[in-house]
Amino acid sequence: MINVGIIGATGYSGAELTRLLYSHPDVTINFLCSNSYFGEEFSSVYPNFRKFIDEKCINIHEAFDRLSNIDVLFTALPSGKAIEFGKRAIDNGVKLIDIGSDFRLKDKSLYKEWYKLEHTYPDLLTKAVYGLPEINKDAIKTANLVANPGCYPTASSLALIPLVKNHMIDVSSIIIDAKSGVTGAGRKATTGNLFVECNESIKAYGVTTHRHTPEIEQTLSTVANEEITLTFTPHLVPMNRGILAVCYGNLNKHYKLEDLMKLYKDFYKDSYFVRIIDELPETRFVKDSNFCDISLRIDERTNRVIVVSAIDNLIKGAAGQAVQNMNIMFGLDETKALKITPIFA
Amino acid sequence: MINVGIIGATGYSGAELTRLLYSHPDVTINFLCSNSYFGEEFSSVYPNFRKFIDEKCINIHEAFDRLSNIDVLFTALPSGKAIEFGKRAIDNGVKLIDIGSDFRLKDKSLYKEWYKLEHTYPDLLTKAVYGLPEINKDAIKTANLVANPGCYPTASSLALIPLVKNHMIDVSSIIIDAKSGVTGAGRKATTGNLFVECNESIKAYGVTTHRHTPEIEQTLSTVANEEITLTFTPHLVPMNRGILAVCYGNLNKHYKLEDLMKLYKDFYKDSYFVRIIDELPETRFVKDSNFCDISLRIDERTNRVIVVSAIDNLIKGAAGQAVQNMNIMFGLDETKALKITPIFA
Amino acid sequence: MINVGIIGATGYSGAELTRLLYSHPDVTINFLCSNSYFGEEFSSVYPNFRKFIDEKCINIHEAFDRLSNIDVLFTALPSGKAIEFGKRAIDNGVKLIDIGSDFRLKDKSLYKEWYKLEHTYPDLLTKAVYGLPEINKDAIKTANLVANPGCYPTASSLALIPLVKNHMIDVSSIIIDAKSGVTGAGRKATTGNLFVECNESIKAYGVTTHRHTPEIEQTLSTVANEEITLTFTPHLVPMNRGILAVCYGNLNKHYKLEDLMKLYKDFYKDSYFVRIIDELPETRFVKDSNFCDISLRIDERTNRVIVVSAIDNLIKGAAGQAVQNMNIMFGLDETKALKITPIFA
Amino acid sequence: MINVGIIGATGYSGAELTRLLYSHPDVTINFLCSNSYFGEEFSSVYPNFRKFIDEKCINIHEAFDRLSNIDVLFTALPSGKAIEFGKRAIDNGVKLIDIGSDFRLKDKSLYKEWYKLEHTYPDLLTKAVYGLPEINKDAIKTANLVANPGCYPTASSLALIPLVKNHMIDVSSIIIDAKSGVTGAGRKATTGNLFVECNESIKAYGVTTHRHTPEIEQTLSTVANEEITLTFTPHLVPMNRGILAVCYGNLNKHYKLEDLMKLYKDFYKDSYFVRIIDELPETRFVKDSNFCDISLRIDERTNRVIVVSAIDNLIKGAAGQAVQNMNIMFGLDETKALKITPIFA
Repeated sequence: MINVGIIGATGYSGAELTRLLYSHPDVTINFLCSNSYFGEEFSSVYPNFRKFIDEKCINIHEAFDRLSNIDVLFTALPSGKAIEFGKRAIDNGVKLIDIGSDFRLKDKSLYKEWYKLEHTYPDLLTKAVYGLPEINKDAIKTANLVANPGCYPTASSLALIPLVKNHMIDVSSIIIDAKSGVTGAGRKATTGNLFVECNESIKAYGVTTHRHTPEIEQTLSTVANEEITLTFTPHLVPMNRGILAVCYGNLNKHYKLEDLMKLYKDFYKDSYFVRIIDELPETRFVKDSNFCDISLRIDERTNRVIVVSAIDNLIKGAAGQAVQNMNIMFGLDETKALKITPIFA
Repeated sequence: MINVGIIGATGYSGAELTRLLYSHPDVTINFLCSNSYFGEEFSSVYPNFRKFIDEKCINIHEAFDRLSNIDVLFTALPSGKAIEFGKRAIDNGVKLIDIGSDFRLKDKSLYKEWYKLEHTYPDLLTKAVYGLPEINKDAIKTANLVANPGCYPTASSLALIPLVKNHMIDVSSIIIDAKSGVTGAGRKATTGNLFVECNESIKAYGVTTHRHTPEIEQTLSTVANEEITLTFTPHLVPMNRGILAVCYGNLNKHYKLEDLMKLYKDFYKDSYFVRIIDELPETRFVKDSNFCDISLRIDERTNRVIVVSAIDNLIKGAAGQAVQNMNIMFGLDETKALKITPIFA
Repeated sequence: MINVGIIGATGYSGAELTRLLYSHPDVTINFLCSNSYFGEEFSSVYPNFRKFIDEKCINIHEAFDRLSNIDVLFTALPSGKAIEFGKRAIDNGVKLIDIGSDFRLKDKSLYKEWYKLEHTYPDLLTKAVYGLPEINKDAIKTANLVANPGCYPTASSLALIPLVKNHMIDVSSIIIDAKSGVTGAGRKATTGNLFVECNESIKAYGVTTHRHTPEIEQTLSTVANEEITLTFTPHLVPMNRGILAVCYGNLNKHYKLEDLMKLYKDFYKDSYFVRIIDELPETRFVKDSNFCDISLRIDERTNRVIVVSAIDNLIKGAAGQAVQNMNIMFGLDETKALKITPIFA
Repeated sequence: MINVGIIGATGYSGAELTRLLYSHPDVTINFLCSNSYFGEEFSSVYPNFRKFIDEKCINIHEAFDRLSNIDVLFTALPSGKAIEFGKRAIDNGVKLIDIGSDFRLKDKSLYKEWYKLEHTYPDLLTKAVYGLPEINKDAIKTANLVANPGCYPTASSLALIPLVKNHMIDVSSIIIDAKSGVTGAGRKATTGNLFVECNESIKAYGVTTHRHTPEIEQTLSTVANEEITLTFTPHLVPMNRGILAVCYGNLNKHYKLEDLMKLYKDFYKDSYFVRIIDELPETRFVKDSNFCDISLRIDERTNRVIVVSAIDNLIKGAAGQAVQNMNIMFGLDETKALKITPIFA
């Protein structure tokens, strides 16, 4: 059995992670830590867990004390908050999977530029393996510290990697226009996230400034082996879950759609969680699953390719991918406890 | 392995049943039959099933031919459409679980009155066991024909049974005001069920005339051992899933809330899927699960009791309860493949 | 021109009131006061008002200073917060319309019991006229202080008044099961009102304890001329606007539906904003309007009447009714600036 | 008074047009024609109109007969269906405003290519004036046939015109990623538009093939005085109303954001319905209004400009713009009956 601890268990991603790990046959949850709700029963914070998890959330100090009891620590925290936990876990020989954003960027100056924070243990940035199993599985197998990708970067990178790796598009032309459900905004009580303020409306936000931009660029630059700068525009959509990423790029020459489709199918043939499909993806068809559905279109009139991908932001975009990474790190099949049929409604 | 066939697999209940049975370790799905989509791949009708079920839907004639290959037939069809299938299944020694409404009422004249249809095999009404496991488990164990309860009747009956069985309320005072998500209206393309017509609105419908009324009355009358006539009002709520039933009754004498709560907890102590809770139920906390959450309040000023119950209409109100019934009929633990933590969002 | 001031202009009701008054041809808005946003432009708090109202919100002290410049003060504030304003307005010869709950109950002990607050100027409770124009128009005409009815009480009282006034139902049997959109919960940032927490779910809340209960009882008791105690259950529905009230009562004898419908049509024949209709009301058909749609059904099997009413909670349930009251108080046609066709979507 | 007739009054755009014209002080509605609902009262098809419009819908033959009674005919019909009406209206000296797509494209071969229909009166394409008042007001004044712009083209063109007219972007780089509420899909009962199928999901559709593409290109090519080919991607968002268009283009040189903002403000200084704003537009802030909110951002890292525009697809994207055009054609102020404060919720 893998003994796990979760810090930040009462955020949306943390709660979803708890749900997935709870039903994982090889996992024992040792503790759930919550800064906001410590001392309260987990099932009183998330009453869907009644009859499943009635244990109380513990605080950070207790979590530190219990580090020696666990094999892997999951952190699901706001920016900057997981660094210290990461350091302690690694120092104690405990593996770390950070669902947040504290170990994703390799370059500490980029971290400072986009997150407005000084990274206190930049050496951990070097040690961290970026947990996108579809391209990094071998490194994840032996990693002690896995930086779980962001939700938008997961959808965007999986959509674009085969094209940029094969140098088929002009990388200076890449535009990603992505749309997310409101769980992506987290559970903090703000006026902007109230039902009435989000319902019956759509907006773009963080245009040209969203922190997931350098993360996507880092991934694509690495696979392309050249520096990529791109435009990324996120949106808030009145639904709970789901991300749809629509990615545009100018093709370097003329391609047939069927050839691109074949390229994608081949590229992802060993990636269980990527489904290359003919129809345009819709977020409802990946809901509650770890799948990323991808399809392509060529705009013949402009010789532009359009890649559309859909994920559940809380699963493949957060908690599910974290479990997938854990499976790989502990020598299990990556699909263990994750072969969930999506719920269409 | 239990070999199953599903007729009406492409309706919302049928698709949900298919999803649950697909992940059931003791079940093999022999066929999926659909009048609307036969010849089409199931995963093209419900693309969430891609990588899971790519088999084609068969038509009714093929389904008849394959009856001998299966142990149990599930029918999920509009009123009147399952009768013939039920007859054939039973005649061929195949067990039947009807998710529809064709075998729920014991009295064929009631069937005619409320469904405006003549029941062609009224003897099957007598044979059929009403599949509410919380009160009928023993009969279900040996049943060949199980009538799976309606969604509203499941939520309403579970809420009221302990009170009426113990004669604690004036049964002439029962009012059930229930609210359902739009999956309850089925997948037929009608103007009234369009997104724009349902979104941002609530309505009552079928006031005094809804077909689930006699079904609830039959169940409550049986447990009370007296004739009960009640008022039932359903509503359509702009959400996909969930039923909330708010049930009112005048208490026959003064009770303490804690005593009623204890009565309910005792009554359902062996019913895994009923959770008696202190807080008022919300449909989101049973979503995607087979649970029925129930809580009570006493209105001291009027000496009225208010019982609130919440289910997922497609699971405990349809497909999940059908699997629960199948488990019982085939000697499995009733919770097999159904111990699903609800999804809160 | 009528000079008005609004205190609490940046809550949902206050903003809606501002919108209605802004387009009223006989009204000049003298000030918008907001405790939360003073010093900020109104159109930055509610950007829909861009090009319409770019003035800054003022604070409470400025509002007091400007009392002498206005003819009528509107208060749209949480419980207890409008009492002092009411006192000052009345003392300064300024008419007051309170959209909140501080002057609705006649009995200060009821106010204390349900609102957990001591009323500091109970004599104003006596002076206040309950602003339900359909039954109180004459008193409103000459009133200096109008207590604008609550949203649930408006829908519920209009639905039941003709029956209780004519002693056609057993008043001890009255149950009101009402459902509201989320604007009813106000604009305060709380976890419970976040999009993700309200979306795709329905819940009952405040069962047996909601503060609108004594208000409805007071209105119905007055028209019935007997003490009425009833059960009231509110619900939160995932939509922005709208209240649907479903009201149950045992008929004192047998009535024909057509006679009840005629009674209602006669009763409300001079009430422009009440539409007695054959079809069951849906909240979408009164959206953005001051209408209250009402229909009735008789449950012959139990001799129970079911009255269903629908309003827009922010309009007829708050801001629209306040304008209607203002029109009456200032000798205008009550429909002035309120003959708005509802928006169906 | 302007006498108007509406053909296609019971679609979503037609109903919205009816609502706006009904409250227009200079307009008399002579007839409402509906192929689907002729003989039925308009207020039974759209019950929000109760007390306003109880007249029955007429059929097409009656509409033809009444042509001589009206000054202007509005057609709100599916592609190909308005051509014959347009011909008859023009031949009878009646002005025509077509909300549909039958007179928007100047080039009949483009019409055939994108609409898969032969245009039977191509000379009318030449006569028709494209009804985007912000750039065509003078021509609209004297027009007999106005082609009301599509919803996506309205939002997209207003967002891009100042940039392309001033040759500030590389026109080969234009990408428009637009998102629409479900009213845009019309009122036809199809499975794809059911509540359950649209709710809690987002999808792109018609990628590279949407019929609004050549319409946007035609408008932008005209103002730029060069041939423009662009990529347009529409999406369906789970909300009733609203379009958000996010438009990307590579800047031809370096510009300051403040200079671009100033350019837009100057360009639209006489256009009441365009609001150039600093904040990013959200569709909720233009709901139920004829406004188009626009803001810009420069992505310094890629020297790309991002223009975001928001409209109510049924108002500025259809019915409101049609009334604006009528006002201009009949010598009224273009804002007559359209100075509506948007509703934020």
